[in-house]
Amino acid sequence: MRSHTGNLWDMKGTWIAMTTTLVTAMSLAGSAGAQERIAPARRIPIPTDVSPQLQAMAANPPPADFNTWPTTVEGWVARQRASEASGARTAAEMAGRLNVAISSRVLGGVTVFDVVPQTVAPENRNRLLLHLHPGCYVVGGGSAATVEAVLMAGLGHFRVVSIDYRMPPTAYFPAALDDAVTVWKEALKSHDASQMAVFGSSAGGALTLAMVLRAKQLGLPLPAAIAPGTPMADLTGVGDSLATNALIDNVLVSREGFCEPAARFYANGHDLSDPLLSPVYGDFSGFPPAILTTGTRDLLLSGTARVHRRLRAAGVEAQLQVFEAMSHAQYLRDDQVPETREAFREISAFFDRHLAR
Amino acid sequence: MRSHTGNLWDMKGTWIAMTTTLVTAMSLAGSAGAQERIAPARRIPIPTDVSPQLQAMAANPPPADFNTWPTTVEGWVARQRASEASGARTAAEMAGRLNVAISSRVLGGVTVFDVVPQTVAPENRNRLLLHLHPGCYVVGGGSAATVEAVLMAGLGHFRVVSIDYRMPPTAYFPAALDDAVTVWKEALKSHDASQMAVFGSSAGGALTLAMVLRAKQLGLPLPAAIAPGTPMADLTGVGDSLATNALIDNVLVSREGFCEPAARFYANGHDLSDPLLSPVYGDFSGFPPAILTTGTRDLLLSGTARVHRRLRAAGVEAQLQVFEAMSHAQYLRDDQVPETREAFREISAFFDRHLAR
Repeated sequence: MRSHTGNLWDMKGTWIAMTTTLVTAMSLAGSAGAQERIAPARRIPIPTDVSPQLQAMAANPPPADFNTWPTTVEGWVARQRASEASGARTAAEMAGRLNVAISSRVLGGVTVFDVVPQTVAPENRNRLLLHLHPGCYVVGGGSAATVEAVLMAGLGHFRVVSIDYRMPPTAYFPAALDDAVTVWKEALKSHDASQMAVFGSSAGGALTLAMVLRAKQLGLPLPAAIAPGTPMADLTGVGDSLATNALIDNVLVSREGFCEPAARFYANGHDLSDPLLSPVYGDFSGFPPAILTTGTRDLLLSGTARVHRRLRAAGVEAQLQVFEAMSHAQYLRDDQVPETREAFREISAFFDRHLAR
Repeated sequence: MRSHTGNLWDMKGTWIAMTTTLVTAMSLAGSAGAQERIAPARRIPIPTDVSPQLQAMAANPPPADFNTWPTTVEGWVARQRASEASGARTAAEMAGRLNVAISSRVLGGVTVFDVVPQTVAPENRNRLLLHLHPGCYVVGGGSAATVEAVLMAGLGHFRVVSIDYRMPPTAYFPAALDDAVTVWKEALKSHDASQMAVFGSSAGGALTLAMVLRAKQLGLPLPAAIAPGTPMADLTGVGDSLATNALIDNVLVSREGFCEPAARFYANGHDLSDPLLSPVYGDFSGFPPAILTTGTRDLLLSGTARVHRRLRAAGVEAQLQVFEAMSHAQYLRDDQVPETREAFREISAFFDRHLAR
């Protein structure tokens, strides 16, 4: 298949066949509105300038059931349990490889995990990172919550507190955010804000941004830096990559996938454009320095880039890293993937630059 | 059309029709190889979180003749002249609005344009920027060369020297690069390298990177900063967005478009993987700080992100800015577009941070 490496160049016949068929598709669908365009079907070759591990991830087709989700509370709970079991296995495997210890406790009434590397780097001895896990506000909790925290602790040699925030059907918006703020207040009792950063991906990236928005409202000190990874920053359907990367991203796949219904289950009827649910609409003035991570195939590429632009427009120091051919948050899958190590190396260096010792 | 804002959510019927048709497309085309995936046809709604001007640009269909190019030298020259005439008009209009004066002279045997704003900012009085124009190494020269230089001079209040490097059929690779290096050497006679930056987009972005690679080889001082905009950094067909953004980008449109054949006309049989033609394969160690610009719809999104990652891997300070729903280098179209002003504001601030006064 090397003849197809990264281009459409050598398959003119196929291209024409597909373009011809597109005309049929357009006839079937009715012609596009004046404000729209049609992107024809196309082959997406295996990316060649990524690690073999990321190549393998990129080659996976979208899951067949990407656009089905529970219709009952019991159904959601079942999905939650399945996700927790699989995430817990991943976290345990990675913690073993990276020599990271995980223990749980209750802090201000909120369940948290202390995620501590065998060797905390000397410069990180007085520093603490708070972590907010991904999972569309509904899954990825319990022992699964620590996956990303283990990567940060193991690859960056930081102490991390991972917050097992409440989720539906136990509690709805703004319970997750309230729990994050509670843990932030608790952490401020033992650490100066200048020694702390907050990070998390997807729903955890949105919660990271929302937590800073809320801390600003409450007049609390702000963390010294944040790392929202591919944040679920807009639940209102805005974001060009929701269309351009639909069915190219093989994780979230499309807006018709699982994640937004899950987020709406959490929102529980609350206005989705509230900046505490869609933080891209928040006031970013005074925000701490931020590093954002996404990939070219990410369904939330636009959301991440838009948050980056708005942080910059607010005068905030903000870095954007975009990984080649990476779908949504695939840098969290495996600590052994070079792109994962690169992403966390960048985040660690960014935190090191901005956190007091 | 507001009901289609940025999502596929509310058009399940259309989606199903297209997916059904895709099966036909796949049958026609033969099934995808084990290493490939198929992205089905989809509607690309008008992006909603961009300026009205960029919305209008995004709504344009790809040009009908995007995949035709000259087959004779005379044909290339005709395209060249047409492009020069239209670019010269754009440059003159923008220069008028932005109060920028343009004059030409010969420097070290190379034609250059002095592009000078009515008011040079006090901090920029001793600074000089060198500019390398876009145009796939074949078009965009002559008076058209100054478009981007006018934006930089007018919006950033810098003095700019825009290099009208030689192009085919007058001269082939490495003539353009040689001319860039010649002007760099000339500029070093009047300015310290620490007071200078080099910038340019597309082929000009690649030339910016190649010029620094060549200056390293020659042991010349390096500029204090560079701004390669959506660089044409890889002519070998590698880059995931060449597939994922094909026919979504309405400027370059696809690898079957005009630009790569033009670049091959310049390369004139030279190995396309030479880092002086595909600078992504160059050694970026010791490079000056760099700011890169692209858009989520850019056919060269991957190329730009890959250069960013490699600069970072080489320990270079490098910033990436990605504009929502922007196709290839659309930030060069019109000085009145907010995204254009934002892009050049960022580049100006980056240069101000890194250039000596």
